[in-house]
Order: sequence, then structure tokens, then C-alpha cells
Amino acid sequence: MFNDYMLEIGSHLSTIRELHEFGAQRAEQLGRDSVYDFSIGNPSVPVPEGVREAILALACDKDSVAVHSYTSSQGSKEARSAIAKGIKSRFGTDISEDLIYMTCGASAGLAISINALCEAGDEFVLCAPYFPEYAVYVRSAGGKSVTVPFEPNFDIDLAALESVVTPRTKAVVINSPNNPSGKVYSRELIMKLSRILTRKSEEIGRPIFVIADEPYRELVYGDAEVPYMMNFYPHCLVCYSYSKTLSLPGERIGYIAVSPDAYKAHELYSAILGAGRALGYVCAPSLFQKVVAMCEGQKPDIQTYRENGSLLYNGLTEIGYECVHPDGAFYLFVKAPGGDSKEFSSRARNLGVLIVPGDDFAACGYCRVAYCVEKSVIQRALPLFKEIFESYSL
Amino acid sequence: MFNDYMLEIGSHLSTIRELHEFGAQRAEQLGRDSVYDFSIGNPSVPVPEGVREAILALACDKDSVAVHSYTSSQGSKEARSAIAKGIKSRFGTDISEDLIYMTCGASAGLAISINALCEAGDEFVLCAPYFPEYAVYVRSAGGKSVTVPFEPNFDIDLAALESVVTPRTKAVVINSPNNPSGKVYSRELIMKLSRILTRKSEEIGRPIFVIADEPYRELVYGDAEVPYMMNFYPHCLVCYSYSKTLSLPGERIGYIAVSPDAYKAHELYSAILGAGRALGYVCAPSLFQKVVAMCEGQKPDIQTYRENGSLLYNGLTEIGYECVHPDGAFYLFVKAPGGDSKEFSSRARNLGVLIVPGDDFAACGYCRVAYCVEKSVIQRALPLFKEIFESYSL
Repeated sequence: MFNDYMLEIGSHLSTIRELHEFGAQRAEQLGRDSVYDFSIGNPSVPVPEGVREAILALACDKDSVAVHSYTSSQGSKEARSAIAKGIKSRFGTDISEDLIYMTCGASAGLAISINALCEAGDEFVLCAPYFPEYAVYVRSAGGKSVTVPFEPNFDIDLAALESVVTPRTKAVVINSPNNPSGKVYSRELIMKLSRILTRKSEEIGRPIFVIADEPYRELVYGDAEVPYMMNFYPHCLVCYSYSKTLSLPGERIGYIAVSPDAYKAHELYSAILGAGRALGYVCAPSLFQKVVAMCEGQKPDIQTYRENGSLLYNGLTEIGYECVHPDGAFYLFVKAPGGDSKEFSSRARNLGVLIVPGDDFAACGYCRVAYCVEKSVIQRALPLFKEIFESYSL
Repeated sequence: MFNDYMLEIGSHLSTIRELHEFGAQRAEQLGRDSVYDFSIGNPSVPVPEGVREAILALACDKDSVAVHSYTSSQGSKEARSAIAKGIKSRFGTDISEDLIYMTCGASAGLAISINALCEAGDEFVLCAPYFPEYAVYVRSAGGKSVTVPFEPNFDIDLAALESVVTPRTKAVVINSPNNPSGKVYSRELIMKLSRILTRKSEEIGRPIFVIADEPYRELVYGDAEVPYMMNFYPHCLVCYSYSKTLSLPGERIGYIAVSPDAYKAHELYSAILGAGRALGYVCAPSLFQKVVAMCEGQKPDIQTYRENGSLLYNGLTEIGYECVHPDGAFYLFVKAPGGDSKEFSSRARNLGVLIVPGDDFAACGYCRVAYCVEKSVIQRALPLFKEIFESYSL
């Protein structure tokens, strides 16, 4: 009676959502202090001061009709132009505002990009560990997901990637800084990837696209460089979001940038316009398009996340946990002590510690710990992590 | 290389958009006063005072993390609960907040509803005249549109509707007050429609759904009642938007309400959750979900639209144009003097008067005149409408 696939993916809470709701119930029963919610990637730092001021100025604007009116479906010229200038000044990439398309966040950008590219039966290569929704977007666009495994340090296994390319490969989705691993792909890796895709595109006689999902671009803690994909490979779309950068996750504001060097870039942009229309997007929220136009380039409070990340990494490794120090994002991807990530998550959950099994990220044997939380939550949780770890040697 | 259909619908500006852009260019060349833009349904009255205050209060809220954080994918409990209460108090319909799903406007609601319901090959009945995007959502969900013609007074031709139902009919989409005709379907018509669909559902052995698209519900000028579909027919979804009611068109905030009496209502709701996920919607914009929770039930400035509608209707009929007095929405659907709506729109355009041919609304021979404009625009345009009318008798 209903669409089977929609019913299937709508009937089961995602693991993240389920953990989060379990936490809410436990908090109600036992008090807020008995829950250590590391399950969800919701920024814990306030919006930058400039963003607060911009929202306030727009709220006070006497011309509410102008503030809240429809923009064109591709987004306001002001926002697109500010973004194009930002890309030019930060990465040196010349891109016209006519290749920027404003979206309701990076998820909408990904769904739209995949629908714009996908012809029936096309294959999309997803590099593990990856955000579970990628596979949902590919499947509902009529495509097929192909998963590529990762190296022990969470780099892409490039040999494996090369081996899965077929004449039906339409695009590769990459995400750096990575959710859930915190990995930033190095310039060397990006250059190797680019060479492989150039060669393979020639082999199959059509360009393989790269969709770079970049909501965590600004959240980098060491001196890791986050290479701008367009500067290394022509057939490239960047899906960006201000959710994490400007602490606006619920407001759904981001963009797609189509590389000017991409194969038939303007035709691809038209297909993106069409996909946005087909999926029911009329325009990105207008007030936050104006905020973006005013605040492009403003930086989040990195320091808080950096301190949280170090506190958690040091605490966990001292206990005996195995994990890779994150370069960016706000996740630590921890090896499950017994090897079974669901068991690890379940033991943690019994103590009120909510961590997400890596299985949904195509990475069994790990759990994701989101450290965008109050520092005190980490401090109070560390003894519990110790208790969990020790339970494995009983 | 790209998805053909997305490319097709993304490559051509919609007629409305094209007219609007022509107007912007003309304004630049000849001055703003030389353009009479009746092309777009963008509310011309400011947000209600209570909405302005709510936005301002949220902008000043010290806890920006709470204001802008993700809500659950179905929307915040506060917003859904305020909406369920509003429905109960206004229409007497008992509906749980668990059957309300917050959306990025009515368009998103329609796309999501259609994707949730549609199995490959399903037919969706669209009642002319109708918003062109309905057909886009049906096609991209894998369904087939079937158009039903209208009566001279813009009522649905119910005999025609009955004759097009087949065992593959999944749903009928209705829109009252209607864009583009301004028609409000009477209680009598809704009861007849309900009886037909009940009988036909029995005949084909499965329920036919009704999707009621209701962004114009509050914009009613006479004493016309807008029957609440759920009270007349069980298998019903209402797609609502605050775009027109609260003058927030660019902010993309609305909801889907699933009738508690619908066939497997909670399963349908799950399919809606799934479709929202598949189309890339993470949650509706959080700040405006809070605005809705605070402002549900607030009314727009009807008086301005009522005066505009009367001024335009009286002016045009006095000139000799044929049109039906609108019951609601902010459109007048005018018969093209020569019978050719594109010619009528083109002659108007030559004088800077922008009106949309009805062809895209499955109603040739009419043009849509959106009167959500400054009153002075109507006053100054009337002599031009006269000139256009007279050009047909030359």
C-alpha cells in the first residue's frame, strides 16, 4: 500500500536516534547527570558572536517582507556571491556564483547531487567509514552503493577503490574531516585518488565525479591541511554545511559548489536545479541565507572541541582503549575492546554512556564517541569507560 | 551523463520565474515603476506582530545551542503539540502530535507525501487548475499524473474524476483555496467527492488517499467555509505551510498531518518519515519550528488582500474581462480575451504587466494575476489592462 523502501527506512529509528531517545528516558527517570550522551553530532558551542548579531539585526529589520521572501531556487545572489569570494580567497579557486546552489544543509546537498548525477543502475563508491545516509540517498535515487574499506589509520584503501570501479561508476563520495573517524585525508592521498580517478575515467570513457561532503572542514585541530578537492580533480562537487561551522545544525543551511572544470559543469548545475525541484526544495531558508551572506568566513570556537578531543583521547588511551588521534570533526572512533561494537555500545549504555556502534558506518568493531559535549560530561564519564574496559577482563 | 529528467526540469526556467526575471531586468532598464509584477505568490504584507516578537525573542535567547540545534526528524514536540491543539480547537478533529510531521514548507510536504505513498506505476489524480510542481513530484516518485478538468466556476468536474479512477489510483490531490483560481471548494462538493472516493475505494479494493494542499487556508475573504478534509473523508493527509499565513515564504516551514482515521495511519506516518529521510530532509528549520510553537493560530492581514482582490476584480470586470470573484488565496484567474493565454501574457508583458499563462496549471485560455502586491501597482496597472483589452478589438 505504501512505498516499501520508504516504509522500511522510516520504520526503524536510526541507531543514533534510538540511543538519544534512550538517553532522554533515562534522564527523566534517574536525572540528567546519569546520562553521558556521546551519540549525536550536535555542536555544543554557541553560535559565533557575529552570527548572533546578524540574526538579531535581521529580526529587527523593519522590512520583514524582504527578509522572509522567497529567494530564487538557486539561492540569493548575495549569499552565492559571498561564498564564491570566500572560496577564491581561501583556496584560490576561481568559481562563479552561478555554480553555487544554496541548500537546506549538506544532507540536502548530497541527496540533490546524487539525484542529479544518477542514471538508473549507476554505481556510487562510498569510502568507509561513512555517514549511513549516503547509502539511503543512492538507493532512493535508483543507484547502487559500492563500499570501499579503510586502512588501519582510516585512510581510504586506494587499491580497493581502484578495483571496484566499473563502467557504471558515476561518482565517489568522500568526507574529510571524516565522520565518524575524525580523519583528515592528506594532500598526498587526495593526489593519489585524483590520479586513479583520472586514469579510470579515461579507461571507462566517461568522467567519474567526486562528491566531497565537507561539513567539518573548519573543525581541524592540529596543523593538518584539508586539501580543496577542486584544486586536485576537475569533476568535483563540494557539499558544504554551516551546521557545524556556525553552530546552526537545525537551521538547515549549506550549499553545493560545482567545480568550473567539471565535465559540462553548467549542465550539471542545471541537473542540480532540477533535482532540487524534484525533491521539493523551493529555496534554502531565506533568513539564514542572509546570515551566510553577512557571516561567510567566520570561525567556530575550535578551542573547546580541541580540548574535549584531547581530554577524551588521553583518558581513553590511558585506560587501554585503542583509537587514532582525530585530526578534525568532533568524533573519536574507538576500537571495541572485545571486537564486537554492539556489545561494547550495549555495556556502555547500561551505565548511561551512549556511544554508536560503527556497523552503520560500514565499520564493524568500532564505536563512535561524539565529543561535542560539556567538558564535565567527559570528565565524569571517564571512570565509567574504565569500568566498561575492565568488564572485558573479568 | 546526468539524470535526463532532472536535467530537463532544471534546464528551463519555470514560466513564473522567467517572467519574474524579465521584470527584474526591465526594472533595471526603465525603472521600478515600469514593472507591474503580478507573477509570483510572495506575500506582500509584513509578518504578524506576534511572529516578529517571537523571532526577536529567539534571536536574543542566550542559549543559542538550544535555539538552533537539530530537532527530531519529525519535528519538535512543542511545535507538533501546538499544531495538534490548533487542529482540535478549530476543526474539532482529534489528532495526536504523533501524526504531525514538520516540513520545509508545503512543497516539501507534498513531495514527501507522494514519495511515501507511491509504488511504481501508481496513478495520482490532479484536479485542474493545479500548481505545476504536483506533476513533477509524482513523476520523480515513479508515479503517473492523471488530470481532471474543471467546471466553468473552477469546481472539480466530479463526473470526470470518477471516470478516471482505476485500480492503480493511489491518491487525489486537491488544493482549496485554490492556486491559481482562488476557488474554495464548498462543503457540498467535498461531501460528494468523499462519497465518490469511498465508493471507488470499495470497488478497487484499496483506499484512495486524498492529499489536501492547504497553504491558503487562512486567506478567505467572504464567508466561505473551508471544509477540513479529515472531517469528511478518512484516508487523508493535509499539507500545510506558514508561507502565506505568517508571511514566511522563504523560511520553509509547514507540516503534514495524517488523519488518525486513515488506513494504517501510523504505518503511513512511518513511510513519511522514511521519505523525508530519503529526500535529504534532516529536520524542518529549528528556529521557525519554535516560532510556530509560539504563534500557531495567529492570523495574517486579510484586509489588505481582500481590498486588493476587490479592486482588481472590479477594475478588470469593468473593463470587460471575464473572471470569477475569488473566494480565497491571492490570485485572480482571468479569461484571456482572445482565448490564447500565452498571447494575452505576451501582450501584457510588452507593457510591463507580468501575468502567468494558465497552460502550466493545466488550464489553457486563462492567465493568473497574483494580487499580493502594493495597492498602487494595481491602481497604476488597470489602465494598462484596459489598453491590452482594447488591443483585441483593433
